[in-house]
Amino acid sequence: MSDQRFDPATLTYNDAGLIPAIAQDATSGEVLMMAWMNADAVARTLATGNVTYWSRSRQAFWIKGETSGNVQELVDFRFDCDSDCLLVVVNQSGPACHTGRQNCFYRAVRGGEVVELEAAP
Amino acid sequence: MSDQRFDPATLTYNDAGLIPAIAQDATSGEVLMMAWMNADAVARTLATGNVTYWSRSRQAFWIKGETSGNVQELVDFRFDCDSDCLLVVVNQSGPACHTGRQNCFYRAVRGGEVVELEAAP
Repeated sequence: MSDQRFDPATLTYNDAGLIPAIAQDATSGEVLMMAWMNADAVARTLATGNVTYWSRSRQAFWIKGETSGNVQELVDFRFDCDSDCLLVVVNQSGPACHTGRQNCFYRAVRGGEVVELEAAP
Repeated sequence: MSDQRFDPATLTYNDAGLIPAIAQDATSGEVLMMAWMNADAVARTLATGNVTYWSRSRQAFWIKGETSGNVQELVDFRFDCDSDCLLVVVNQSGPACHTGRQNCFYRAVRGGEVVELEAAP
């Protein structure tokens, strides 16, 4: 199969024009977080190398780490078989989670109980 | 913080009653796929240890691998800071992707081109 130019419009977005993006740490393989992008955020992420989401609460671009400094440098940009989910492999500066934890998935369910895997800093 | 009983109803679901679930391979750390669960699928996944999604196309429970044999045995069930995304760490039997590839994220965008990272089997 010959390679082809990528067009963000070829991805499948939901009714709000958004696609989920999973961020994975390039070094540790840790799943850091999941957030949303629109087509412009996809284009900006690819153009700048700084992972840029669409904030649903603020209805604005969200350059990850722009205020906190906890930026995500894009290492690889992947999309899935249905073209309706993204995987961004990143170099994460500082913690990924707004709670200050390394990643957002710090709670588990084990034996029916909620267990906190990483305490708040 | 004392541990507490987990209730699937405490998660945040979208307007369709669904929450995204990222599946990660317990051994390799590979992000395998993303699919959706409703509260009942969450409960079934935890009760059975067989990762069970909700198929949006079929509007039915989707016990991963039930027909293909490519089951996902639950190793750990995690949820994120906003309680609106799940991470299921799994032992994956066979390929995770319906295309027969190991995972669904087999295409990347590099230098503006779509690159296939794993050929169809």
